[in-house]
Amino acid sequence: MTQLLALDEYFQQHRETHLEQLKTFLRIPSISSLSEHKEDMQKAAEWLVEAFKTAGLENLSIDETAGYPVVYGDWLHAEGQPTILVYGHYDVQPIDPLHLWESAPFEPEIRDNKLFARGASDDKGQVFMHIKAVEALMQKTGTLPVNVKFIIEGEEEIGSPNMESYIEANKEKLAADVIVISDTGMQGPGQPAVCYGLRGLCGVQIDVQGAKGDLHSGLYGGGVQNPIHALAEVLASFRDQEGTIAIEGFYDNVRQLTDEERGAYQALGFDEEALKEEVGVTELFGEKGFTHLERTWARPTLEVNGIFGGFSGEGIKTVLPAEAGAKITCRLVPDQDPDEIVGKLKAHIAKHQPAGVTVTVTEFDKGKPFITPFDHPAIQAAGRSYEKVYHVPTAYTRGGGSIPIVAAFDEILELPVVLMGFGLSSENFHAPNEHFHLENFDQGLRVIGDYYYEIAGFTKDELRK
Amino acid sequence: MTQLLALDEYFQQHRETHLEQLKTFLRIPSISSLSEHKEDMQKAAEWLVEAFKTAGLENLSIDETAGYPVVYGDWLHAEGQPTILVYGHYDVQPIDPLHLWESAPFEPEIRDNKLFARGASDDKGQVFMHIKAVEALMQKTGTLPVNVKFIIEGEEEIGSPNMESYIEANKEKLAADVIVISDTGMQGPGQPAVCYGLRGLCGVQIDVQGAKGDLHSGLYGGGVQNPIHALAEVLASFRDQEGTIAIEGFYDNVRQLTDEERGAYQALGFDEEALKEEVGVTELFGEKGFTHLERTWARPTLEVNGIFGGFSGEGIKTVLPAEAGAKITCRLVPDQDPDEIVGKLKAHIAKHQPAGVTVTVTEFDKGKPFITPFDHPAIQAAGRSYEKVYHVPTAYTRGGGSIPIVAAFDEILELPVVLMGFGLSSENFHAPNEHFHLENFDQGLRVIGDYYYEIAGFTKDELRK
Repeated sequence: MTQLLALDEYFQQHRETHLEQLKTFLRIPSISSLSEHKEDMQKAAEWLVEAFKTAGLENLSIDETAGYPVVYGDWLHAEGQPTILVYGHYDVQPIDPLHLWESAPFEPEIRDNKLFARGASDDKGQVFMHIKAVEALMQKTGTLPVNVKFIIEGEEEIGSPNMESYIEANKEKLAADVIVISDTGMQGPGQPAVCYGLRGLCGVQIDVQGAKGDLHSGLYGGGVQNPIHALAEVLASFRDQEGTIAIEGFYDNVRQLTDEERGAYQALGFDEEALKEEVGVTELFGEKGFTHLERTWARPTLEVNGIFGGFSGEGIKTVLPAEAGAKITCRLVPDQDPDEIVGKLKAHIAKHQPAGVTVTVTEFDKGKPFITPFDHPAIQAAGRSYEKVYHVPTAYTRGGGSIPIVAAFDEILELPVVLMGFGLSSENFHAPNEHFHLENFDQGLRVIGDYYYEIAGFTKDELRK
Repeated sequence: MTQLLALDEYFQQHRETHLEQLKTFLRIPSISSLSEHKEDMQKAAEWLVEAFKTAGLENLSIDETAGYPVVYGDWLHAEGQPTILVYGHYDVQPIDPLHLWESAPFEPEIRDNKLFARGASDDKGQVFMHIKAVEALMQKTGTLPVNVKFIIEGEEEIGSPNMESYIEANKEKLAADVIVISDTGMQGPGQPAVCYGLRGLCGVQIDVQGAKGDLHSGLYGGGVQNPIHALAEVLASFRDQEGTIAIEGFYDNVRQLTDEERGAYQALGFDEEALKEEVGVTELFGEKGFTHLERTWARPTLEVNGIFGGFSGEGIKTVLPAEAGAKITCRLVPDQDPDEIVGKLKAHIAKHQPAGVTVTVTEFDKGKPFITPFDHPAIQAAGRSYEKVYHVPTAYTRGGGSIPIVAAFDEILELPVVLMGFGLSSENFHAPNEHFHLENFDQGLRVIGDYYYEIAGFTKDELRK
């Protein structure tokens, strides 16, 4: 624990400076899905290079891809010791609806020991913690107990379309013994969790084209197909009234929950009443026959993420619109294949093709689902690091979200993946008023620092997957 | 025909000036549905007062209502002659989607003898023609063959919410023998039509509220109701796959088409192939068992005018949105009652209330359907005026659109209503690139001028409804 105390001192002494530094990172509106933020993406990458340099990382580079670049840095002087590959992302989600933000998304503000800004929790804040952990170790001990490599990408929020080929092309450069990712959440306030599986992702945009221009609903209404109505019928056909997805073959390859897994989830004592309170609904809704944790961790879903068409302003406009569109994404679980599911989605849409309109389906980028044995030493070590700092047992969980690239790390680099998250589900990532609880910022820095020593206790062989 | 020739001369001599004057009217963005245009509404009303004065109308006033004002003017010196009440509106539709306009909606432009601008056809252009017809008669003859009263309102595009009480309160002031409205279309290019019936209108906005804020679709997806999906299910439930509205009792009071009416519509030789070409669809779509004219003139409809919810930007955002909404309007035919239909709509929504969300229904303003005997002398006179100018038989039609206030004129003032339109269905009113064919502007001025003499040929008794 001596090293931990030394690190603590460093983190406490520099807390204000660190938070100011993080705020400069958060002020960069690096929204990867909107092309107008191209220059901000470059700015964010350059900010990271500077932060890497300050921390003591070496061999810094901004590695170009077909999309936004990957920022690389390493420190490889712990001879004979394992190598930790740290992955994260510097891109953030869009910010609409803007009017629901209490403070501007790119003007970070601390209120009630929470840091409010887009990216505070997902994932700039957590990336920043890893950088500062390295910095603290270097400053206090002049060295690191293990070797480290950092790759921070800029396209996670749009499905990491270029990351897989980057990893393929840089297998040597990225060779490591364990990969650590802090982009998931804790089980709850004060309740650390190591995540051993994630859902995959696939999706499509459905565009419905009717007449070549908007029509007067009086003159043409009732005589020409309405694209919004047609789209609503397609969307409604995707599921039954009880939340079960009605796409043929959707559940075919879903790995069924074992009784053991169901029991383990049950034992976590998840509070559905508290969840209702948190999100503000009077009842939960989902696939019949499953608990909320089962629905969100181990069952696939289909969600409509957005819909648009016709007049959405104030009041009434009696128009028969020319077009409508919707964005759909599915969360996938082992052993569903994203390509296969998109194929089934498309077949379903074709089968339910409404009359009098043209339907176009555009695929989004995909990510495979992922699962890893929770008794792997790198995962158990993470659990111990958490326990040393939080003084409660670590939960071993699966995550409902997707980090599309995790499956690629698993497949290409054949590394154990440790998902060591410090976010809380109430922190509104992907929504207005995203924030990060600073007690987990403070505690998390210590957990990460300790984990370096934990990993240094294993041989490379022991860590092999 | 002597008077017609004199009017012709006036219209030809002043054509350029008139078009420039009309352009100044069209440059005022008087969108009644958007509160930010409040000042423009006042400007448009004031513009009308000036135009009335120039034409020779008297007793000018801007009559306040609970909403936007009604502009009034009259000329009442044709002793013993009938009085024509001219109704129109100075408000216009919203302009979105703006990117589809080829020239700016409020920068009028003449291309190919068509005047492009929001309101060019609906209804500023046609209101302007009535003013110029009075002006021409006064300039060329120093008098009018009949008495006239003008009321031009500012809330037609939002359902005339204050017009009925205005008429009630001004029964004396508005007393007349016939009301003339130019806000409908011709049967086709060169094919004049007098419209003897209109559909009514009612509608609601449906707002669906799920969680109190947008949620991450990975963390919550599959476990919390999706408001867009819930809304899509409600919308889909409104009709069957063949276009028949599935709301209980929706068709209960619909006046069935007589064989004679069906025959008369058939005789118009409506070209469905040409319509497909015009609007750009490969097939028409509507209630089974009815022709296109029957569907749009004599059958009620339900259209989704707009839908919104979640992310509609470029690319993907994996959000589970907090809310979604849609705007719905129904076109009604005799003898459907708008209040009753809204009641049935609400009952249907309540019956199909999805789990896990709150649904709020907000009513829009309503208008009753309207029908008048087509052999009334004021209507037949309009047909003759058209025939003198266009040299083809006038079609007697019904209109699919709604002028909500027409039923009120009928009920309160007990006047025959003559719908004498000069628009063409291809003119994109309520859509981008609204325009007005200037040949109908030129011909229409002559038709209106002639109609004053036609009406002067009847006694007040003969015009009684």
